[in-house]
Amino acid sequence: MRSSRRGNRFTTVRSWFVTIWTVALLAATADRVAAQTDPLPSWNEGAAKKAIVDFVQATTSQGTPTFVPPAERVAVFDQDGTLWPEQPMYTQVLYCLDRVPALVKKRPELAKVEPFKTILTGDREAIAKLPKAELEKALFATLTGMSTDQFQAEVKRWVDTTNSPRWHRRYTELAYAPMLDVLKYLRDNGYKTFIVTGGGQDFVRVTADGMYAIPPEQVVGSMAGVKYGYDDRGKPTLTKEPKLLLNDDNAGKPEGIHLVIGRRPYAAFGNSVGDRQMLEYTKAGSGARLAMLVLHDDAKREFAYGPAQGLRDSKVGTFTQGLYDEAKQKGWIVISMKNDWNRIFTFDTDVVAKKVP
Amino acid sequence: MRSSRRGNRFTTVRSWFVTIWTVALLAATADRVAAQTDPLPSWNEGAAKKAIVDFVQATTSQGTPTFVPPAERVAVFDQDGTLWPEQPMYTQVLYCLDRVPALVKKRPELAKVEPFKTILTGDREAIAKLPKAELEKALFATLTGMSTDQFQAEVKRWVDTTNSPRWHRRYTELAYAPMLDVLKYLRDNGYKTFIVTGGGQDFVRVTADGMYAIPPEQVVGSMAGVKYGYDDRGKPTLTKEPKLLLNDDNAGKPEGIHLVIGRRPYAAFGNSVGDRQMLEYTKAGSGARLAMLVLHDDAKREFAYGPAQGLRDSKVGTFTQGLYDEAKQKGWIVISMKNDWNRIFTFDTDVVAKKVP
Repeated sequence: MRSSRRGNRFTTVRSWFVTIWTVALLAATADRVAAQTDPLPSWNEGAAKKAIVDFVQATTSQGTPTFVPPAERVAVFDQDGTLWPEQPMYTQVLYCLDRVPALVKKRPELAKVEPFKTILTGDREAIAKLPKAELEKALFATLTGMSTDQFQAEVKRWVDTTNSPRWHRRYTELAYAPMLDVLKYLRDNGYKTFIVTGGGQDFVRVTADGMYAIPPEQVVGSMAGVKYGYDDRGKPTLTKEPKLLLNDDNAGKPEGIHLVIGRRPYAAFGNSVGDRQMLEYTKAGSGARLAMLVLHDDAKREFAYGPAQGLRDSKVGTFTQGLYDEAKQKGWIVISMKNDWNRIFTFDTDVVAKKVP
Repeated sequence: MRSSRRGNRFTTVRSWFVTIWTVALLAATADRVAAQTDPLPSWNEGAAKKAIVDFVQATTSQGTPTFVPPAERVAVFDQDGTLWPEQPMYTQVLYCLDRVPALVKKRPELAKVEPFKTILTGDREAIAKLPKAELEKALFATLTGMSTDQFQAEVKRWVDTTNSPRWHRRYTELAYAPMLDVLKYLRDNGYKTFIVTGGGQDFVRVTADGMYAIPPEQVVGSMAGVKYGYDDRGKPTLTKEPKLLLNDDNAGKPEGIHLVIGRRPYAAFGNSVGDRQMLEYTKAGSGARLAMLVLHDDAKREFAYGPAQGLRDSKVGTFTQGLYDEAKQKGWIVISMKNDWNRIFTFDTDVVAKKVP
């Protein structure tokens, strides 16, 4: 053999090279195979990931008692705190606060009355202390009174130009990567995915398609009434009215699901007491049902609040100790952001680096 | 040649046979080709059929200014009088009347009060004369107060066991064959098809999937509120409340479209003044939009009412002279059942005979 003639050292070096090369090649291949076969690449192995995979297998395996016909495969997702961050404030509330100056410009008399007076100061602490009823005045004033087309254009302009102060990114970039995995995995398995949010239906519809590939007709949210009429040029128009038609939170979530979807979901994802009834309603159906709650326990990569942190009265996204205990008792799976997710956002660079071979 | 020796007469007969055989063969082939290529086989050639085909071509031809991205392809259909008959009474009203005896059995005190007293007599003429407000009492009493699951089961049992007195068929067999063609043709071209009905959303959802391949989440209708709660065994349940959340008729149709679908449709089909605003809203969008109205002018095969018959005040499905004039003026296409449809129902035997080679 030719190599044997070149001495031991060279052979050893060459064999090292071959070994390293082979290992690297195998590793790269394994990575690629894993990327191809792992439907939830942003999830660490564990009970939460296993629960999702088991659920999909149970409901899509023909001939089993838990098989669900494709037409009935409905999965629902809360948005704030479940698909994207909700701290330190709901994105929609930030939008409303940002709209106040433009509103006051049109209606200067508002500058002297609450809550507009405080909001105009820009003092976030003072704003956070406004009573809920006062804040609602600002929400109604900035979310209603215009045509649906106009509202859509205003929200689009805002999300296209406004950055999150925490992440210095557009809000539309803040979808949780592991939840994008779940949405895709469910859709790849014939599930129709819906957002069921306490947030404004019209607000969420503007971004849901681009962020989550969820079309407007699959967004259920709190609804203001709309009124059909005609604009100055006689063109038909729908005006958003300051009238709450559906408060899509708490018991309102299963009610909204019935009104808009008309079927009981097989899977439901939430993160707060506002999702309790949605999860309960989902699990009350027969066969295999999945109910999951995102626990925000990752102060380093996102936020930590809820039972583990003793923040029981967090203003938004209240994940109380009671909800945590109920979840454990009823088999609703609690997702630990810290332990179950290997990245939070798609732009998290460590994972991006890992994914490129 | 052998044949020439057998004389002129035989040759002629044989050539007739060959000709007849060839023509029959060609005709059969042509029939089969037409059946394969004609997307609207239950429609006669004419302006209405051409309008549908032109619309689909305009909105699905890539690179044209009228091209519509698949995600935005939404088509809406009224049900009563557009997808199935509405005369002599709405099917849902017939259902409610049929439910009254069971209701009175549970609540005997109703037997002595109107409208239940009259309804119990079974006198259709007297029932037809009941004031609208009285009739509504019967609707609310038979359509609300039970769980959504119970209501669904009751409606299903009724449609599975009740025949239309006019056609001696199940109501679910009464879908207009030409409209089934349109639904399929639009879906084959990437359109999502929705029902937008003045009828009860929950009522229509029970049969829409089986009749029209339209799933519950694509049925928009008049909505009663639902209330989340628990039954005797603590099982979560949604109760239908006697509270009208959306009257999905007239201006309520574009409002309902916004609330549930969130997009302006590209095509809308109706048959009465209750569909006016839906058609107007659809046509007010940019690009190619299709608005069509079914005119019931076929007393022999179905019913004749509306402007052509001078029945301007027909109790249901009012197709007034005003609507007819507006349609002509605005380019909304009027479909003549008599002239545009070569069959009304899928069970019409003349067409079945024609289609079998």
